[in-house]
Amino acid sequence: METDSNLILKDTEQITGVSENLIAKFQRVRKITEELCKPLRIEDYVVQPVVDVSPPKWHLAHTTWFFEELVLTKFKNEYRVFDKNYGYLFNSYYESVGERVLRPHRGFLTRPTVKEIYAFRKYVDDHMLEFLSGKKLDNAIRMLIELGLNHEQQHQELLITDLKYILGHNPLFPVYLEKNRSHKQDANNEFTYLEIGKGIYDIGHRGADFCYDNELGRHKVYLHAFKAMDRLVTNGEYLGFMQDGGYHDFRWWFLEAWDWVNQLETKAPMYWHNIEGKWHNYTLSGLRVVDPDEPVTHVSMFEAEAFAQWKGKRLLTEFEWEALANKYTGAATDAGFVDNRVFHPEARSGSSNQLLGETWEWTNSAYLPYPFYSKAEGAVGEYNGKFMINQMVLRGGSCATSKDHIRLTYRNFFHPHLRWQFTGIRLAENL
Amino acid sequence: METDSNLILKDTEQITGVSENLIAKFQRVRKITEELCKPLRIEDYVVQPVVDVSPPKWHLAHTTWFFEELVLTKFKNEYRVFDKNYGYLFNSYYESVGERVLRPHRGFLTRPTVKEIYAFRKYVDDHMLEFLSGKKLDNAIRMLIELGLNHEQQHQELLITDLKYILGHNPLFPVYLEKNRSHKQDANNEFTYLEIGKGIYDIGHRGADFCYDNELGRHKVYLHAFKAMDRLVTNGEYLGFMQDGGYHDFRWWFLEAWDWVNQLETKAPMYWHNIEGKWHNYTLSGLRVVDPDEPVTHVSMFEAEAFAQWKGKRLLTEFEWEALANKYTGAATDAGFVDNRVFHPEARSGSSNQLLGETWEWTNSAYLPYPFYSKAEGAVGEYNGKFMINQMVLRGGSCATSKDHIRLTYRNFFHPHLRWQFTGIRLAENL
Amino acid sequence: METDSNLILKDTEQITGVSENLIAKFQRVRKITEELCKPLRIEDYVVQPVVDVSPPKWHLAHTTWFFEELVLTKFKNEYRVFDKNYGYLFNSYYESVGERVLRPHRGFLTRPTVKEIYAFRKYVDDHMLEFLSGKKLDNAIRMLIELGLNHEQQHQELLITDLKYILGHNPLFPVYLEKNRSHKQDANNEFTYLEIGKGIYDIGHRGADFCYDNELGRHKVYLHAFKAMDRLVTNGEYLGFMQDGGYHDFRWWFLEAWDWVNQLETKAPMYWHNIEGKWHNYTLSGLRVVDPDEPVTHVSMFEAEAFAQWKGKRLLTEFEWEALANKYTGAATDAGFVDNRVFHPEARSGSSNQLLGETWEWTNSAYLPYPFYSKAEGAVGEYNGKFMINQMVLRGGSCATSKDHIRLTYRNFFHPHLRWQFTGIRLAENL
Amino acid sequence: METDSNLILKDTEQITGVSENLIAKFQRVRKITEELCKPLRIEDYVVQPVVDVSPPKWHLAHTTWFFEELVLTKFKNEYRVFDKNYGYLFNSYYESVGERVLRPHRGFLTRPTVKEIYAFRKYVDDHMLEFLSGKKLDNAIRMLIELGLNHEQQHQELLITDLKYILGHNPLFPVYLEKNRSHKQDANNEFTYLEIGKGIYDIGHRGADFCYDNELGRHKVYLHAFKAMDRLVTNGEYLGFMQDGGYHDFRWWFLEAWDWVNQLETKAPMYWHNIEGKWHNYTLSGLRVVDPDEPVTHVSMFEAEAFAQWKGKRLLTEFEWEALANKYTGAATDAGFVDNRVFHPEARSGSSNQLLGETWEWTNSAYLPYPFYSKAEGAVGEYNGKFMINQMVLRGGSCATSKDHIRLTYRNFFHPHLRWQFTGIRLAENL
Repeated sequence: METDSNLILKDTEQITGVSENLIAKFQRVRKITEELCKPLRIEDYVVQPVVDVSPPKWHLAHTTWFFEELVLTKFKNEYRVFDKNYGYLFNSYYESVGERVLRPHRGFLTRPTVKEIYAFRKYVDDHMLEFLSGKKLDNAIRMLIELGLNHEQQHQELLITDLKYILGHNPLFPVYLEKNRSHKQDANNEFTYLEIGKGIYDIGHRGADFCYDNELGRHKVYLHAFKAMDRLVTNGEYLGFMQDGGYHDFRWWFLEAWDWVNQLETKAPMYWHNIEGKWHNYTLSGLRVVDPDEPVTHVSMFEAEAFAQWKGKRLLTEFEWEALANKYTGAATDAGFVDNRVFHPEARSGSSNQLLGETWEWTNSAYLPYPFYSKAEGAVGEYNGKFMINQMVLRGGSCATSKDHIRLTYRNFFHPHLRWQFTGIRLAENL
Repeated sequence: METDSNLILKDTEQITGVSENLIAKFQRVRKITEELCKPLRIEDYVVQPVVDVSPPKWHLAHTTWFFEELVLTKFKNEYRVFDKNYGYLFNSYYESVGERVLRPHRGFLTRPTVKEIYAFRKYVDDHMLEFLSGKKLDNAIRMLIELGLNHEQQHQELLITDLKYILGHNPLFPVYLEKNRSHKQDANNEFTYLEIGKGIYDIGHRGADFCYDNELGRHKVYLHAFKAMDRLVTNGEYLGFMQDGGYHDFRWWFLEAWDWVNQLETKAPMYWHNIEGKWHNYTLSGLRVVDPDEPVTHVSMFEAEAFAQWKGKRLLTEFEWEALANKYTGAATDAGFVDNRVFHPEARSGSSNQLLGETWEWTNSAYLPYPFYSKAEGAVGEYNGKFMINQMVLRGGSCATSKDHIRLTYRNFFHPHLRWQFTGIRLAENL
Repeated sequence: METDSNLILKDTEQITGVSENLIAKFQRVRKITEELCKPLRIEDYVVQPVVDVSPPKWHLAHTTWFFEELVLTKFKNEYRVFDKNYGYLFNSYYESVGERVLRPHRGFLTRPTVKEIYAFRKYVDDHMLEFLSGKKLDNAIRMLIELGLNHEQQHQELLITDLKYILGHNPLFPVYLEKNRSHKQDANNEFTYLEIGKGIYDIGHRGADFCYDNELGRHKVYLHAFKAMDRLVTNGEYLGFMQDGGYHDFRWWFLEAWDWVNQLETKAPMYWHNIEGKWHNYTLSGLRVVDPDEPVTHVSMFEAEAFAQWKGKRLLTEFEWEALANKYTGAATDAGFVDNRVFHPEARSGSSNQLLGETWEWTNSAYLPYPFYSKAEGAVGEYNGKFMINQMVLRGGSCATSKDHIRLTYRNFFHPHLRWQFTGIRLAENL
Repeated sequence: METDSNLILKDTEQITGVSENLIAKFQRVRKITEELCKPLRIEDYVVQPVVDVSPPKWHLAHTTWFFEELVLTKFKNEYRVFDKNYGYLFNSYYESVGERVLRPHRGFLTRPTVKEIYAFRKYVDDHMLEFLSGKKLDNAIRMLIELGLNHEQQHQELLITDLKYILGHNPLFPVYLEKNRSHKQDANNEFTYLEIGKGIYDIGHRGADFCYDNELGRHKVYLHAFKAMDRLVTNGEYLGFMQDGGYHDFRWWFLEAWDWVNQLETKAPMYWHNIEGKWHNYTLSGLRVVDPDEPVTHVSMFEAEAFAQWKGKRLLTEFEWEALANKYTGAATDAGFVDNRVFHPEARSGSSNQLLGETWEWTNSAYLPYPFYSKAEGAVGEYNGKFMINQMVLRGGSCATSKDHIRLTYRNFFHPHLRWQFTGIRLAENL
């Protein structure tokens, strides 16, 4: 795992999230967003170097807009919006809510200033706290606020990956956070296989806790027996693929991936630079020599799949992954894995099998609705369903994911060529 | 179904394909390709109006190249290639076989002439027949030739859809084949539901007959109970969606689909034209008023999904479709469905449930490898595996598919925005 | 000069054009267009490999459309158009005449067939001859027909350059016309300078003969003294530029040209191929070794300018060129140059100074209106004026230009990056 | 003229520039750049909404880089660069000086911060002042510094137009500078014609003062008699064109311009918005109703030419403009026009004929070298020559041009479709 980003959320490590009430959670989540921005200069908040990367400023405002637009204006008496233009400026893609700035143009908006956006956050936070402290909220509103907080946690992760992109594509390679030591998976990089037998497995969210609509509709799948590595593929192993000419051998690549590869200026994971014959990678603590023992990250699904082809193995499906996680991190979901995840990677116990909180793991499952999936009405219904095409599912959560935002049933998804997220590889094979 | 294309393959209807030997099949399949081209003028053979559509001339040569390159040059003694340039000119995407003309440039090649390409076909056919008539072929070579013939049948279908595109995008709307009467599904358009109960189902090819590698590895899936229409969605039903503003309501569309819709000049299936307030569609027998009772066709998966969303239903997965086809066309696979398919749509028996040979049906399954899928070595291994990303599976076969090229386990696949194939819609819902 | 194309118009060499009447000229010009197509196969007529290159079939029809649309339908009693769709299909860019097929889509139209287009030509020719043989035509109509014939001669040149592009971008490099011997400028490639003194010069067309509107408005310019080569730059000289790294040295190129150069796959004139270390170029008689003594051709203005920069010289302005041509080919315009131009390059007299009929010469003059330029009303007014931006003037005529279409005052024009015309270089410097 | 920008340079109005020494001029020019940025927020310095618009931060650094790279590192003893990365970061297009950040990527660089760039400016300024105060500089170095200061003045103008673009494309339409009253040309908008008789005129810079290389090589041109408006076309007159359907009538537009027009979302000059049926335009003091009496500005050459076509008149050539300016502002060049230009538009005397400092005037002259033009060696030689293709000349200077940067012989140039500069229209006709 990218060690420099392990520290990101350390201030919140004492929070367990279990018995926390909604006010406390609201305050905690909102605060973390701002803390993540502390190392930034004003200039870093503004730009959008590629369409997938939003300006940090935009994340700050958009997550706030969610509470203003979907909670306060709808449910708080006599609420007056902070600025009537913000609805237009900071809507992301919710067609039901009205017009919006087109996504590729987010990086042209120098105003409102960062200061004004922090004032917007404060204004909305104050009203939200007033609202939360008022008469008892009904369940639908509580769920909406939970959604807003989970939405903000998603954007916290994007904030980290986006600012990494912004800083990591600057020729000066600025440091976001200094970090001394690197996390290694294991000194010797040995691994064993985790096994799952054939049979019917239950998939999807269970219980009353928050989850996204795309995890709902618990249902059965039949799995054939398989085994999977108990750790992620390392930089060292990936370098083996590169040194064997992996980026130059069409046999390992999808046809679309082969076009993609041929347009890559640097035939390596994102943020890798070959400096005088030695591979370096940009991390949130700056440019450094690639550590062969760390999990490879910032690879596209194309690269993950090509690596697997080269190894004669395969990626997991998302259902296999979930069955695996259910079996091998079962205990962890209650207490175990949470505490020794992103905040203390150095203290991670061997039992975690590293299925959670290392990197997002590309699966070979397309992002499709579960059998009992149904879309909510209105803006909330746009949250997930409209993306269920041409994207691949990732599982597990990364070092940039908030610890209480990780779930065994969580379905992340990106287009297969993208790699600015902390994405990695786990190999499997049939038994 | 598009009636005008029903007649395409009628000359071959008496062939059953079961007891046919390889020589006879070779001759039959090769001949059909040329018969499909009979209505064409020389000019029609040459152009490539969009990248997905190859010039008919290219199909004629490429299918021939397959036999020359992968059979004759490898296995026939002292075979001399017809023209050493053809390997370069008529390879499609097989990287293992060497350089090739880039796909978007196929339409610039006015030479070799159509006449020369027919001479190439004759030359290769003569050598193939000599080869097939010689000493007994081992099984691997027989399978390769079977693959070549199935490959040619696939290109026969593309030939039909590509020439439809070429003629159908000409402002003169030329007729390919005159056809008097239209096939209708049913006079009253009523339908019933076909049902499948929950449980474990077997998926994939069984038996010794030819199939593609992507159908192999018979395996189990768990299905929840569902029901599906026993016929396809009609033009009339689809017009209902259009009249309800379906193309202008973001709620029914994937985010990517919504961009696609907004760039469509005509908000309707491909080949539809609104002429003085009345919808017409181009068919292989020319432009005519849309028949409300025929199955809607030339819709993208985006349109199929939007229609389903609007109806509050859903598409089938490819596994559901296969279970359905296994249950409801079971007897047909042996004898029944074949005879009353594309050649005699007017004589179709009620028992066929129209699951085969009407239109390709978009499923909501991404094109991914089956659990036991393994890629062959060399050029043959490039046949399917390299496409297993960003495409959706279609099932069932269309009126342009050769009857003995249709199988219950056949997995066709295209990108979800494409619609120049004969593609249609069947709706399902959970039980 | 490209020798293979020298023969193109040989059948017409005996025609002097001076005393010819309009009927005879009409027949002669129309016939040449068809003769130029004789070596083509049907397939060659159809395609449009890049937007600038129109299908030969289109040229045949468009030149005919001119007479139908602008002459027969307007002035011939009870004329009925050959096909009402052709107005839409074969209009080029005349907005005043109605809708039209977009230029990039000309190459998708497989119908009408070549045969039908020849029938269209015959139909229009017959009506035109009837019309021309009828009552005496007034002057405006005669001028319109003259314009139509000059228009057709322009398209004859485009027909040659377009079919060269089509054949020359085919990997088989088909021969258009066999030609045995090559024309060379001079055995030793020596040259002398032609000089012009400072002073006021008259520019623009004089007399009652046909010319385009852009040549009208004879006016004065002041020229400073200069001298120019009495022949064109040769392939050998251009190879010197290439061998000196000319394509890799930014100093010689405009900023826009430098981008263009860096995207060139082959750093050489169009149609040049480096085969095993030796430069070849495609000519209308096939691929052959580059002849160092022939004029370099198929260079863009970017390349012409870069070559001049490298030599420390410059291109002529169009005004300098015209003054030069007036002085040095004065006598030739009456009789001299015509006979020993494209038809008998081997017999060219030394006195011609090769200013006419070798290659179009890029000037460093932008294509702008002359001081007294005024645009005609209607479609004819669209002939020239709408192109007077972002294009550069070429002077002199090429081996593909009809001999009676060459004038000292003729202003050809293309965008500076284009080079599928027969374009060459003449250098000048100040005195 | 856009009144809001008239005040931009007011602090410097007392400066005459005539007797000023190099140190004073250096300090003055460098200071103005920073004063122009005073109304900006940090966020405004960073972004690049389109490729033609550079981030203000970049202008601040690039103009400084000029002095560091071309003066200090070359001529100042033991000079150490401020930061070795800046050469790479802030080079614009000078190939001779080494690699550089590609122009479209300037807007991704959040670091160095604005503060660091001001420190860079201070560092270089201190060293420059030390250098200027040292031993007597030879003439070549003085000219280089003059070039650097003129370069900075050019970038001051770009800074103004670029920040106008950044703020003017923000949906909040932020105010850059408050300004109360608007400048109008004349209450009644009458105009008279300025006339020039036919004859030979001298063109190009004269004297020892600084000018760019593209103005050098004084030479003669012949002009035919013409007359031109003594003021610029107004918004009111341009509205007449719009109301007459000018943007929808192909007759007025070049073919390339017609494509451009059809892609314009708003058929009006840049920064114009139709709000509830009333035309507004964004100015540096915010959005306001269009003033019919002010000169129209932010029009492309395409629009200027279309307007002239519609009026049945024409644009001037750059030579006609220079002859006009020589005749009618002759006295002004010494003292007159300077004082009543951008700084006191309200006090402008009628005698200035508004040829200087209102808007850049599109001419119908392509940007080409003068007859005696020769390019300097090295980086300085890249200043102008490499742009002499596909651009049109503008004359006169705008309200955003520094007063001592305006010259009668000054040749500005842009591509004809661009309009983010303060560009306007003056009409002429032949006599």
